[in-house]
Amino acid sequence: MKQINEYIASNKNQMLEELFQYLRIPSISSIADHKPDLYRAADYVKASLLKAGVDKAEIFETKGNPVVYAEKLVNPQWPTILVYAHMDVMPVDPVDKWASAPFEPEIREEKIFARGADDDKGQSFMHIKAFEFLIKTNQLPCNVKFMIEGEEEIGSPNLPAFCQEHKEMLKADVILVSDTGMLAQDIPSITSGLRGLAYWEVEITGPNRDLHSGLFGGAVANPINVLAKMIAQMTDENGHITIPGFYDDVIEVSAEERALMAKAPYNEENYKKALALNELSGEKGYTTQERTGIRPTFDVCGIWGGYTGEGAKTVLPSKAFAKISCRLVPNQEHHKIANLFKSHFEAMAPKSVKVEVKILHGGQGYVCPTDTAPYLAAEKAYTATFGKRPVPVRSGGSIPIISDFERILGIKSVLMGFGLESDAIHSPNENFPLFNFFKGIETIPWFYHYYAQMMQEQRNNLP
Amino acid sequence: MKQINEYIASNKNQMLEELFQYLRIPSISSIADHKPDLYRAADYVKASLLKAGVDKAEIFETKGNPVVYAEKLVNPQWPTILVYAHMDVMPVDPVDKWASAPFEPEIREEKIFARGADDDKGQSFMHIKAFEFLIKTNQLPCNVKFMIEGEEEIGSPNLPAFCQEHKEMLKADVILVSDTGMLAQDIPSITSGLRGLAYWEVEITGPNRDLHSGLFGGAVANPINVLAKMIAQMTDENGHITIPGFYDDVIEVSAEERALMAKAPYNEENYKKALALNELSGEKGYTTQERTGIRPTFDVCGIWGGYTGEGAKTVLPSKAFAKISCRLVPNQEHHKIANLFKSHFEAMAPKSVKVEVKILHGGQGYVCPTDTAPYLAAEKAYTATFGKRPVPVRSGGSIPIISDFERILGIKSVLMGFGLESDAIHSPNENFPLFNFFKGIETIPWFYHYYAQMMQEQRNNLP
Repeated sequence: MKQINEYIASNKNQMLEELFQYLRIPSISSIADHKPDLYRAADYVKASLLKAGVDKAEIFETKGNPVVYAEKLVNPQWPTILVYAHMDVMPVDPVDKWASAPFEPEIREEKIFARGADDDKGQSFMHIKAFEFLIKTNQLPCNVKFMIEGEEEIGSPNLPAFCQEHKEMLKADVILVSDTGMLAQDIPSITSGLRGLAYWEVEITGPNRDLHSGLFGGAVANPINVLAKMIAQMTDENGHITIPGFYDDVIEVSAEERALMAKAPYNEENYKKALALNELSGEKGYTTQERTGIRPTFDVCGIWGGYTGEGAKTVLPSKAFAKISCRLVPNQEHHKIANLFKSHFEAMAPKSVKVEVKILHGGQGYVCPTDTAPYLAAEKAYTATFGKRPVPVRSGGSIPIISDFERILGIKSVLMGFGLESDAIHSPNENFPLFNFFKGIETIPWFYHYYAQMMQEQRNNLP
Repeated sequence: MKQINEYIASNKNQMLEELFQYLRIPSISSIADHKPDLYRAADYVKASLLKAGVDKAEIFETKGNPVVYAEKLVNPQWPTILVYAHMDVMPVDPVDKWASAPFEPEIREEKIFARGADDDKGQSFMHIKAFEFLIKTNQLPCNVKFMIEGEEEIGSPNLPAFCQEHKEMLKADVILVSDTGMLAQDIPSITSGLRGLAYWEVEITGPNRDLHSGLFGGAVANPINVLAKMIAQMTDENGHITIPGFYDDVIEVSAEERALMAKAPYNEENYKKALALNELSGEKGYTTQERTGIRPTFDVCGIWGGYTGEGAKTVLPSKAFAKISCRLVPNQEHHKIANLFKSHFEAMAPKSVKVEVKILHGGQGYVCPTDTAPYLAAEKAYTATFGKRPVPVRSGGSIPIISDFERILGIKSVLMGFGLESDAIHSPNENFPLFNFFKGIETIPWFYHYYAQMMQEQRNNLP
């Protein structure tokens, strides 16, 4: 396994060149015009997997974007790892905030800059290259399957049906995912939990057309004023969410676990400085890590209505819109929350406007216990390459499909993420440090090694 | 004066053709790219005035858009009417809501459809044609001056300085303006008062970049959530504005005057139906006409921030913006109100964000007493052409420059508006009925006639 460092050293440029080709494909899943790019990305992933040494690779159609499946089955007695990743990326606006074009990858200050450099093209490519190494050096200790989808950034709407349909094909002992982050380059960490998500678009309609604010202002409800008031009422002065029943299924984390979480390295001054904030803000009674890890949120992701051009236009608009999302904790059922908000928001609307709430997507939270083989094997792998034991972290982000895997396929996932907070995923100037990219390629084969070893031992110990 | 009907009948097509040429110029004053169109409009107005018979016409430069000045001075003993109008128009978005292109005028169902068809190209063109008639038929009973500006829709920022500089040139007995509406085609009315205006743009800055709402959501203030809460707090549950000191200078209108106002024809069911509203909404304790005529307002004219594209993007945005305006009543000083809001809004911002308020423009309210010569002459003119006495109306709209005229030039204005509520000014599908356009051309010469007559009588009666 030690050959991995030599392998990386002698293939560095080739690996980057191939990754860059992948990054140049603008595979934005939330914009319908980019659908052909998802097919280009699928073709590229399929070709890369075949080149890396899988026995077969196939592009499956779904009702939405395609899924690439590939496999290398060496011994039915050996354990099977299913690698999950996604080839779709987030939109790039505001595009004028990017220092280099989002789909023209560039290396600056030892970092790869491009949309998807980290999330999740960079991280998914690490797996292809780690697998290639195991094949080339004849060290593969298990069977491997790959499932690379194209709709993660829009909530994987068609992957549950795909899993349902291909249960047999996807059979595995563990699902391995690199779509999360680590605390710092010198503080390796493993994500042991994820938040869930609910996402809505709301539309407030006042008068049937934009009105002159002088002639009608004061007598006709302004849909933007109304929307602001409705949004304002969704949280109280302590940062609590006021949707009735919202917290019913939230499990309070124990005092012990909160004490453990508090040991993770965190410097509030640096955190604020990095974001240019004078003050943090959130739910009363919880720390920053708790607010982002174990508590649900209410965030308006976008808002628009009326005149937004240059200068002044005195208009009383006909409509106002908002995109709203809640991060949820694992025990909150996202469909239930989606409907709770919809009913509440529609019911609270004043009669002077019409309110429509569309449920856009959602996903369930997830917890991976730290005393199971997948977690322990990952822990050993990081220890081998970073020289220190990784910290378990509850992440605030959501990968909705992870809990679906458990529900449909009955398989636990382990989240070996190599991203950094500074990677600016979902933002302008997304990047992925070269250190993290190559460290990922170095660490993943160790996971294969330890996981296969542990599973073998478990089998040997069977009565 | 009766020849006016024949004159209109035999010149109808020519008048419309010339108006259409004027309407085709996209002279949007709030968008800098359209500046050359303001010069095209000025050239066109100047040529039209010269053709109509003024002695001289000139385009004056200002720090902003040009002003067209023209005059026909026939006898220094005769009274002088100064016609004020504007050649600039509002933006046209949302442009997809227009049934025909905003700058390609079209007649449908006896109405002219185009941006500016009413406000104020249609109405200003009536004056040019009414003047042309008086010249052609040798009936001009007074001196006439024209001042057509290009910045009314952005609050006439440079016209006060222009008036200051050209006080002598602009000397007149009355200012005649057609930039308002009338109650209905069979209910003529004269605007006896106008509301003032204050207009701001606010910018809320949270983190220094758009953030992943999962990784940061809950711990970092979301500028859209904050903006919504701040806007929500600006009015209370009774529709009162909560800015401290906001109502200090509001003069309560007397019970008698409110009773008189209540006699104006108004049908709430029709009003709601025309706007497709189930319920009206406004300040508690006031009727619809009072809410739009004698009470100040707080309206968000535009709002934007975060992701507003297709589908779902889970982002915690860096910034949120709003364009906010207040209609003011005559005694409220607009600079004072502009600063009151700015200080209040900036002071109430939580420390977790930065708030910047820019004052975009403003204007003073105005009252024209109904017992003065300008009002009475206008009343007679409408009676002559409509066959019934017009109703005095307090309009909710603002023409900020009207009160500046009084302050700087010491001249009262009379507001002879021929627009209808259904003209959709400032909105998609702005239109002006042919009836109103030609009725305006018919009525204006009668104002000249009666006003000159009344001023002559006044002079004869001097001791």
